[in-house]
Amino acid sequence: MSFFRNMISNKAGMPPGTLIHIGERKAENIRLSIIDYDEKGLEEKELKTIEESFIYKDKPSITWINIDGLHDVEIIAKIGNEFDLHPLIMEDILHTNQRPKMEDFENYLFIVIRMLYYDKTENEIISEQLSLILWKNLVISFQESSGGIFEPVKERLRKDKGRIRKMGPDFLLYALMDTVVDNYLIVLENINERVEELEEELISRPEPGTLEAIHNFKRELIFLKKSLWPLRDLIGILERGESELIQEKTTVYFKDVYDHTIHMIDTVETYRDLVSGMMEVFLTSISNRMNEVMKMLTIIATIFIPLTFIAGVYGMNFNYMPELSWRYGYFMALLIMLMVGIVMLIWFKRKNFL
Amino acid sequence: MSFFRNMISNKAGMPPGTLIHIGERKAENIRLSIIDYDEKGLEEKELKTIEESFIYKDKPSITWINIDGLHDVEIIAKIGNEFDLHPLIMEDILHTNQRPKMEDFENYLFIVIRMLYYDKTENEIISEQLSLILWKNLVISFQESSGGIFEPVKERLRKDKGRIRKMGPDFLLYALMDTVVDNYLIVLENINERVEELEEELISRPEPGTLEAIHNFKRELIFLKKSLWPLRDLIGILERGESELIQEKTTVYFKDVYDHTIHMIDTVETYRDLVSGMMEVFLTSISNRMNEVMKMLTIIATIFIPLTFIAGVYGMNFNYMPELSWRYGYFMALLIMLMVGIVMLIWFKRKNFL
Amino acid sequence: MSFFRNMISNKAGMPPGTLIHIGERKAENIRLSIIDYDEKGLEEKELKTIEESFIYKDKPSITWINIDGLHDVEIIAKIGNEFDLHPLIMEDILHTNQRPKMEDFENYLFIVIRMLYYDKTENEIISEQLSLILWKNLVISFQESSGGIFEPVKERLRKDKGRIRKMGPDFLLYALMDTVVDNYLIVLENINERVEELEEELISRPEPGTLEAIHNFKRELIFLKKSLWPLRDLIGILERGESELIQEKTTVYFKDVYDHTIHMIDTVETYRDLVSGMMEVFLTSISNRMNEVMKMLTIIATIFIPLTFIAGVYGMNFNYMPELSWRYGYFMALLIMLMVGIVMLIWFKRKNFL
Amino acid sequence: MSFFRNMISNKAGMPPGTLIHIGERKAENIRLSIIDYDEKGLEEKELKTIEESFIYKDKPSITWINIDGLHDVEIIAKIGNEFDLHPLIMEDILHTNQRPKMEDFENYLFIVIRMLYYDKTENEIISEQLSLILWKNLVISFQESSGGIFEPVKERLRKDKGRIRKMGPDFLLYALMDTVVDNYLIVLENINERVEELEEELISRPEPGTLEAIHNFKRELIFLKKSLWPLRDLIGILERGESELIQEKTTVYFKDVYDHTIHMIDTVETYRDLVSGMMEVFLTSISNRMNEVMKMLTIIATIFIPLTFIAGVYGMNFNYMPELSWRYGYFMALLIMLMVGIVMLIWFKRKNFL
Amino acid sequence: MSFFRNMISNKAGMPPGTLIHIGERKAENIRLSIIDYDEKGLEEKELKTIEESFIYKDKPSITWINIDGLHDVEIIAKIGNEFDLHPLIMEDILHTNQRPKMEDFENYLFIVIRMLYYDKTENEIISEQLSLILWKNLVISFQESSGGIFEPVKERLRKDKGRIRKMGPDFLLYALMDTVVDNYLIVLENINERVEELEEELISRPEPGTLEAIHNFKRELIFLKKSLWPLRDLIGILERGESELIQEKTTVYFKDVYDHTIHMIDTVETYRDLVSGMMEVFLTSISNRMNEVMKMLTIIATIFIPLTFIAGVYGMNFNYMPELSWRYGYFMALLIMLMVGIVMLIWFKRKNFL
Repeated sequence: MSFFRNMISNKAGMPPGTLIHIGERKAENIRLSIIDYDEKGLEEKELKTIEESFIYKDKPSITWINIDGLHDVEIIAKIGNEFDLHPLIMEDILHTNQRPKMEDFENYLFIVIRMLYYDKTENEIISEQLSLILWKNLVISFQESSGGIFEPVKERLRKDKGRIRKMGPDFLLYALMDTVVDNYLIVLENINERVEELEEELISRPEPGTLEAIHNFKRELIFLKKSLWPLRDLIGILERGESELIQEKTTVYFKDVYDHTIHMIDTVETYRDLVSGMMEVFLTSISNRMNEVMKMLTIIATIFIPLTFIAGVYGMNFNYMPELSWRYGYFMALLIMLMVGIVMLIWFKRKNFL
Repeated sequence: MSFFRNMISNKAGMPPGTLIHIGERKAENIRLSIIDYDEKGLEEKELKTIEESFIYKDKPSITWINIDGLHDVEIIAKIGNEFDLHPLIMEDILHTNQRPKMEDFENYLFIVIRMLYYDKTENEIISEQLSLILWKNLVISFQESSGGIFEPVKERLRKDKGRIRKMGPDFLLYALMDTVVDNYLIVLENINERVEELEEELISRPEPGTLEAIHNFKRELIFLKKSLWPLRDLIGILERGESELIQEKTTVYFKDVYDHTIHMIDTVETYRDLVSGMMEVFLTSISNRMNEVMKMLTIIATIFIPLTFIAGVYGMNFNYMPELSWRYGYFMALLIMLMVGIVMLIWFKRKNFL
Repeated sequence: MSFFRNMISNKAGMPPGTLIHIGERKAENIRLSIIDYDEKGLEEKELKTIEESFIYKDKPSITWINIDGLHDVEIIAKIGNEFDLHPLIMEDILHTNQRPKMEDFENYLFIVIRMLYYDKTENEIISEQLSLILWKNLVISFQESSGGIFEPVKERLRKDKGRIRKMGPDFLLYALMDTVVDNYLIVLENINERVEELEEELISRPEPGTLEAIHNFKRELIFLKKSLWPLRDLIGILERGESELIQEKTTVYFKDVYDHTIHMIDTVETYRDLVSGMMEVFLTSISNRMNEVMKMLTIIATIFIPLTFIAGVYGMNFNYMPELSWRYGYFMALLIMLMVGIVMLIWFKRKNFL
Repeated sequence: MSFFRNMISNKAGMPPGTLIHIGERKAENIRLSIIDYDEKGLEEKELKTIEESFIYKDKPSITWINIDGLHDVEIIAKIGNEFDLHPLIMEDILHTNQRPKMEDFENYLFIVIRMLYYDKTENEIISEQLSLILWKNLVISFQESSGGIFEPVKERLRKDKGRIRKMGPDFLLYALMDTVVDNYLIVLENINERVEELEEELISRPEPGTLEAIHNFKRELIFLKKSLWPLRDLIGILERGESELIQEKTTVYFKDVYDHTIHMIDTVETYRDLVSGMMEVFLTSISNRMNEVMKMLTIIATIFIPLTFIAGVYGMNFNYMPELSWRYGYFMALLIMLMVGIVMLIWFKRKNFL
Repeated sequence: MSFFRNMISNKAGMPPGTLIHIGERKAENIRLSIIDYDEKGLEEKELKTIEESFIYKDKPSITWINIDGLHDVEIIAKIGNEFDLHPLIMEDILHTNQRPKMEDFENYLFIVIRMLYYDKTENEIISEQLSLILWKNLVISFQESSGGIFEPVKERLRKDKGRIRKMGPDFLLYALMDTVVDNYLIVLENINERVEELEEELISRPEPGTLEAIHNFKRELIFLKKSLWPLRDLIGILERGESELIQEKTTVYFKDVYDHTIHMIDTVETYRDLVSGMMEVFLTSISNRMNEVMKMLTIIATIFIPLTFIAGVYGMNFNYMPELSWRYGYFMALLIMLMVGIVMLIWFKRKNFL
């Protein structure tokens, strides 16, 4: 249920650009780290203060500044000052319930997207905000907590795998976003597994719990849709190379991420179609079951009610009831009952009830 | 139920531009107030007559004229005359059931939007019309009642907080609209809370009252949609800076409001998806319950009906019924009944009814 | 049910432009009237023959020729000849089941719209076709019957109210269309009232009749949609001033009508959303009711069926039934029955059935 | 059910342009006829071989070549050769399950549409393919069978009615298409009648057969949609005069056909809205009925089950049952039963069950 | 169920362009074959190593290189090197769960589509990925397994049927895609047959299995939609001749494939409309059946319950029950029962229950 919480936050009456952290505090301490690299070398270190990173601003090498944890407004404000970011951008970084979006200021690009994980123990999707700033020779990333999601990118940087160290900061931006999108795939894979289970359960043994599972499944899809649609739009802009900060040769990589996003949207749409069908199947299964139950009741009741009536008749205490004194009266009565029962059964057979 | 009332008003046959106040009279008295400011100073006062405000028209400082209460047609007419507003604009201000819209005349901009509050005591959304006129150096705002919604803006003006006193009247317009949109968020937050309650109630203990709650919830969403969609469109026009009265540097602020609106629309859409699912879940829950009830009836009835029949048989009064005179006839009958009952139970177990 | 009748008419095989009146004959006699006016004076008269109107064709004053009743094909044909109208236009005027549309010939504008009334006695919407021709200095209007809908416009002309006599024939066209659109509002208001009634009825006391009411309501909305959507499109064209016959200063008035149309479409859409919800609520209410009924039956039956069985057992006539001869056998039997009943009731309580 | 048959045909693996007739053979013999006309005269004749028609190719008069029956591939191939038609066009003429479409080659226009009839005896819509080729001075039409649908056009040509003989071959094309579209109207009219019947039946006396009727009705609408939507698109292209083979003055006639198509699409959409409502109404009616049945069962059962229990109690054979020997025990028992019955009835009344 | 499996694959953390085969291994061995042809001659052979094909790269004749089986990453990598393909393209070929797409690099065109077969034994649709590369004078095709689907194209090449040997490699590309699309038709035909069966079953004898069949049918349509929509888009691009590698004269053939795709999409949409109706019909049929069952139970129960009660009354053992000692008491009791039964039956008749 948690994914809809905090979707909306109240900051009514504050002047625009007021810096307050809105959202859960997910990390204990703020962690500042930096990776500075070019084709020849790489320098990686943890920072004590954010000011240490500012010297990289004017170096020709490419710098990736990563901030884990957003509750120290001071640090964000200093970055904003140093890089001359618009106050509204600062606000967006701190309000961690943004809709994915991109804004292109002339000298930097601001991107907000959502990172999704699947928490297997709680069986729910966890969502975090990732803000990215692409500056002419550096990338700044703001994460809510210090999950190790970007470790593979760091490895590729350290070991100079692929072309990452030969390309510009826009390629680093791509690598980070690609990693986030690949994590969406894990979430989708997980959903995929559960869909197959659910479908089987649905047909073979529908239970009240199935209903809740379908409903939860539907809510997860709604949630994924909310993250994916705007993501597609913003990657679409990057892919078309509309920003000057994205080089021509990098757009083909964004195109690739774009295709993945489209593929995932397709998949989510497919699941949505499926899930609406599942609800119908579930409803119909229940109706079917009820039908079965009712049929049995009807058969038993309609056979025995007339028989019980006959027995009741011969249980009456009238002084003068000629059948009662007949020698084979009792056996005749039993015979009549048997015949009524058989006729009923035949009739049910004909009516296709049995 | 009140939000659909007065959606439609009949003025058939009147010539266009006839000034009549249509809508509930929400304020006791009309209140006229004025704030005149520039970077250096600020003057604030309550007015007796609207004419007092006209001297500010040609001053270089920025003036905000606020009118609370619309039932004095005279005042509106005077303003219209002084500022040379189109008669249809005057009509729109007075007919307080307008769809949000914006109109760009060459020398002024006219905006109608809806202010929404959540009335916690009545548990319903209250809607009021706010008309705004942006003139080269002033803003006129028309409210239906004198709620204190704009108090924070006034505070920021008085205390020179943020950049509001350094910017033009278009920024004041932005500040007012932003405040209104922030109030939408409160409404949405409130709905959010109730959704979570409703979802829990739905799964754990569905009641007939739940149905009404879902239905009301759906109607509120329809209502929000009616206010939000046109609002988005009009802010979109402002954000693209299509009007000459909006300065380049203010558009980024309107962009921010625009993003909030998009976010809210997204949220409303999400809720609409959710609510349709809730209806289905509710229906299915009811069917499930019914199924339970029917199953119990069926089990009890199908077990006892045959037993009662057997008892009935041995309650018949035939003179010659050999079993009756058997020494252990009675116990045998009881045994047969027990066995029939057990067979039935086993059968139910097999059929997965128990 | 009448609004779908005559929606479709068969004229298969006739050459295009054949003049035949298709539709119900709604007026007894054809009434021809004329109003000729300019800023200084106004002349109004009833005509015997249509030829009398042709002298106004070349006068500089503005002329409004109104024809009530369409069954005299001759008159329509003469007008067509005199004003050189395209044969297909003549056909459209006579076939009174047109979809609202506008056609812009170089020297005249042809508009077909639908007039809607609410017939309170029959409780249904009545629809009539209104054809309008805008010529450089005159307007010709064709109505199916002579309802007094345009009386207010005539009054404004006669009394020189508003700016109607100062403007051109395009403003007269606007005034007529505005009047028609205002009548739509009355229809919507009427529907609005019934919606509120229906909603209350739905929750508090659903009946089979409610179903029919919802269904009829839905059909009226479908019908309104059919009239409103094309109307919006055609007014949109007029408002954008795409025709040379519409003057720049008149477009703002058409913009106003356009806004009304959008508002009504919004309202109809809102109702459509509502009505689909009502259907669901109704269905669920019925299920709920059924549930109640079934629960009661189940409770009564499951309590008494076992009791009746016990009574049946002791009604058996076996010679040797030890309990029968016990001193307090009867009271013990009653006690057992009571206990079984109480146990059942407690169990129902636990299962939340009571 | 037949309209979906043959929607799809398998020609996998054949090279494109292979001429094979796919579809039912609807005509016994192929019939070739020709009408050659200009403003002054008209010549009409039946042909033995298709070659006889080729002499008209270079005459200045307008020629209409009509082929009824498509199973002689030879003839089609000869026409293709003579008029230099693209092999894929030839293929399309012969595969009689085309989606309506238009193709504009530089020197000719190819149009495929579907002719619809209503077969009253079978109560189903019959669909046939009509292919039309517009050449600079002639029109070739290919029909599957020789229905007399174009007889009125021929009459107008023979008797020189309207302007058909004064216009070019594009007007002949228009006349043929208009005739086809007019036949759609007959189909819709027929559907219209059945809708009204169905709606009445639905409310007053729903039966299982009604369900099938609604389902069939829905399928016919799906089928009409499949024919109408692409038809609208292709007429839209003709109407906008995008092809050089369509003269300026003819476009207004295509505009007229276009309006009819839009009108029909509107109507089909309206019916689709209606029919979905009908399904809901039917379902609800059934639920309502069931409710009635269940209520009656419940009332009867809950009244008599307790009474029968009382009777059962006094039918027990205990030796010592004090009430049995009371003088008025029997009457008291009857009285108690009566009272229980009355209390039950009052309670039902209160619960609104009666 | 298998078609949704592997829709999503996890490659999180790998650098872009990493070549790993993702998907089932469908072919035992990789098969490399080549056909080299021009108007005059044709050379066909199986290859041992992929390097043998590279000599055809610079020949003026047209070459078709076909690779069946994708699990040898080495071969794909060599081709990528030789033809200078983008690493992301290589990746797409190997990840066999791509969404259909086309990418136009300056000197080659990359197309991924899905091949669909209907596996009659398993009764399911089988999907395979086909990647195509169009180079200036050659076509490379990558299949997952070596199904004989392209045999007819090879035959046409060998026997010089149609114009395939007279046209360029773009025509070969067309021929391959056309063959794939024709196979879609076979799948649709198969579905078509089952729809008709299902519809008949639905109305005449709905069973629980029908529900599953409808649900499976719906899932197949969702699956087809997922393959067809992007296919249409990519063929649309080819048909509009936006790529320089597609010659003007070939576009008309792509137009033909495009029309087939549109036709199939239409058909899938039609089925989707149908299938949603079928679900409703099924649900309603079940309700109807239940209604029948309940009615019978109600009739039997409400007739016999009062009768049994009467019998019970006269089975009571009161000492003083005057009716018991009447001479014809018994017959009177029977008569009363008969009359009660008849009255009940008449009442049911009136209520339209029988």
